[in-house]
Amino acid sequence: MSKKLVSLDDAKRILKQKFSAEPVGTEYAPLSEAYQCVLAKDIVAHIDVPSFNRATVDGYAVRAKDTFGADETNPITLKICGRISVGESPRTTVENGSAAEIATGAPIPQGADAVIMLEYTIRKNANVILYRPVSIGENVMKSGSDIRKGVMILKKGQMLSSLEIGVLAALGLAKVEVYKRPKVAIISTGPEIVEPGKPLPSGKIYDINAHTLNAAVLECGGQPFYLGIVPDEADKLEAAIRKALDSADIVITSGGVSAGPRDIIPEILNSLNENGIIIDGIAVKPGKPTTIAIVDKKPIFSLPGHPTSSLLMFHILVRPIIGKMAGKTQEPSPSTKAITVEKMFSEKGRRTFIMVNLSKDKTGRTLTSPVPTGLSGAITTLTKAEGFIEIPENQQFINSGEEVKVYLLKPILALSFIEKGFR
Amino acid sequence: MSKKLVSLDDAKRILKQKFSAEPVGTEYAPLSEAYQCVLAKDIVAHIDVPSFNRATVDGYAVRAKDTFGADETNPITLKICGRISVGESPRTTVENGSAAEIATGAPIPQGADAVIMLEYTIRKNANVILYRPVSIGENVMKSGSDIRKGVMILKKGQMLSSLEIGVLAALGLAKVEVYKRPKVAIISTGPEIVEPGKPLPSGKIYDINAHTLNAAVLECGGQPFYLGIVPDEADKLEAAIRKALDSADIVITSGGVSAGPRDIIPEILNSLNENGIIIDGIAVKPGKPTTIAIVDKKPIFSLPGHPTSSLLMFHILVRPIIGKMAGKTQEPSPSTKAITVEKMFSEKGRRTFIMVNLSKDKTGRTLTSPVPTGLSGAITTLTKAEGFIEIPENQQFINSGEEVKVYLLKPILALSFIEKGFR
Repeated sequence: MSKKLVSLDDAKRILKQKFSAEPVGTEYAPLSEAYQCVLAKDIVAHIDVPSFNRATVDGYAVRAKDTFGADETNPITLKICGRISVGESPRTTVENGSAAEIATGAPIPQGADAVIMLEYTIRKNANVILYRPVSIGENVMKSGSDIRKGVMILKKGQMLSSLEIGVLAALGLAKVEVYKRPKVAIISTGPEIVEPGKPLPSGKIYDINAHTLNAAVLECGGQPFYLGIVPDEADKLEAAIRKALDSADIVITSGGVSAGPRDIIPEILNSLNENGIIIDGIAVKPGKPTTIAIVDKKPIFSLPGHPTSSLLMFHILVRPIIGKMAGKTQEPSPSTKAITVEKMFSEKGRRTFIMVNLSKDKTGRTLTSPVPTGLSGAITTLTKAEGFIEIPENQQFINSGEEVKVYLLKPILALSFIEKGFR
Repeated sequence: MSKKLVSLDDAKRILKQKFSAEPVGTEYAPLSEAYQCVLAKDIVAHIDVPSFNRATVDGYAVRAKDTFGADETNPITLKICGRISVGESPRTTVENGSAAEIATGAPIPQGADAVIMLEYTIRKNANVILYRPVSIGENVMKSGSDIRKGVMILKKGQMLSSLEIGVLAALGLAKVEVYKRPKVAIISTGPEIVEPGKPLPSGKIYDINAHTLNAAVLECGGQPFYLGIVPDEADKLEAAIRKALDSADIVITSGGVSAGPRDIIPEILNSLNENGIIIDGIAVKPGKPTTIAIVDKKPIFSLPGHPTSSLLMFHILVRPIIGKMAGKTQEPSPSTKAITVEKMFSEKGRRTFIMVNLSKDKTGRTLTSPVPTGLSGAITTLTKAEGFIEIPENQQFINSGEEVKVYLLKPILALSFIEKGFR
């Protein structure tokens, strides 16, 4: 009955050896749909932005040297030679002794090298009187001063927020090459689980894992699709996994891996591909029965049925793989430091994960305490938890008052908390 | 030409007075589409989870009192009266002197009040021999011990992550009432702007704002729709804004509000609703020409054409409104503290916002410095910025070495940075 478990570090190493997580492909997204996509190519500016010298104020485009010496007592008069509006291509050339009326954002006409602000001028019929000098380049935004043609402005692997999308728009790109989201098939199994929305017969429970995993896949940039609850009969499960492998890049099953008599997932994984199982149990708590196989060069993660175990193993093993396959070069795994308020024990010989909460003490230190429950299957553990800590295999406990690293499950809310003491 | 500007605080106060931001309505989302939706109703558990007492180990369901006194030298023998598998409704009753074989997760049969682990038993034909006693409730997860019927388990206004979706699934809810996303119409105007993807005539620039605002609306929970670039002709702009008001909850325009001769947005807003303009310029830098009107009881935000000004004013004025209309009770506006590395000056009499970067010094302190550019229109300022700081109206500068609050533009990445010194 008892298997030889591998350590979590060995499991990660073996997984990396047997499966190389590469982006699954690229596609073009219009800018309006590019939000939160991952850039698949470096973006090198193919134009200057702006593509012409622009006035940054309303006033007159002039030759700076024509204005030298102008002041309140010795104003200089220039002849108005035209007017340039925003968005226009200037038809005027500014000759010696002349000036062109110009609006903020309009292109500087030929001949001019500066703009004098309206405030320092008075118009008199066809002339303008200047009461100040301007230097060359004054009130002019040079062509290419925002983005210089040829410069690499965004990098492959960057996630596109509103800011990067602005840069793409500035360059006139209506669509952008982004990585495809890896497709992740989700299968639930176990004779006790029932689809939410259906009546609950005696002895059954509703399927939680399919729904938490669906959202967790979205959270890390994958595209989930749910194949439903499959009865734990070998032929049906095998057919479901084969179907999943046909269309998905990654397959996740939950349930059916514990040591009970009807836990048939490992058996099926082996029949799909002899020696396909690369991990058959990990020395962790919770999550011990986690099984990983490679079939058709695709990873199949068989997670335990307990919701907390299942989601924790997803975070630790599956999330980084999805991130890499989605093309992300930075996969932030946000964490914070906190002081433990009670002693926490590990399971002997197993890397132990404990779901925790955060709080602040009067002096502003961040404290952490375990979510009060002894049952790893309890779904409420999950919603109460703000993160988790780990205790290494060779350590029996973490003492009260020790500083630990808390991996955050809800980073944005946690950030507000950390910075403001807000809950 | 020069208008009486209101302070930013007054602008916020007036906006709050004239427009009450309420959720725009609710709808039902299936669990698979509920990720990142905002809960519109408190969730009170209508069932116990689990709905029956469950075995937490493989073994035998027994009456605890039948096991008292059992040990290695004096084992106790019970008669096996049946077998309960996971997902089954037990047909067996455990009488005095009997035990039922039971699997982890299976329901405890009538009569039994504890489970003895398989490890402490030996099966012999129709009997089982116990080598240890168990106490009442041992290895039993009680009905309702995860979620108790009648308890409020999730709160109206909570954003649904994978964790909360797990709770909804546990309760058997296949769909959930969530707030509708407020519809936000986006209009660009200005004679100089051109849609990305089209050729760029001389003197023109590509439209940036429509695309940054589109993504920014998604970021804060709104549903953007883009009405395109509208020529700055009164009748066309008026028609576009009327169309936007027909279908949107909020209208955002950008461009056309500066002091130039062709800045006609304020004029149109007044013609749509006499006295409709509630804010006509704000004492801020950048963002001064920002204009706000209420027409058909809907807010119209007319933002400046400069991308940085426009996005900053969106963050400060529009984002909180969208958040409230999306039903969010917590709208975290993530910030961090940092030490300035250079003196930064304000614009006299105006609340001044400065785009900044973050870095770490050798001692681990977080430092902040302005993004190196003098031009508020520069799109690259945006991508280089990690956040912004504000200098109050009555303050001339922030000294080098002062501690300031940095409002974060990319909270998740910033969190990693803050906690790990990662860039």
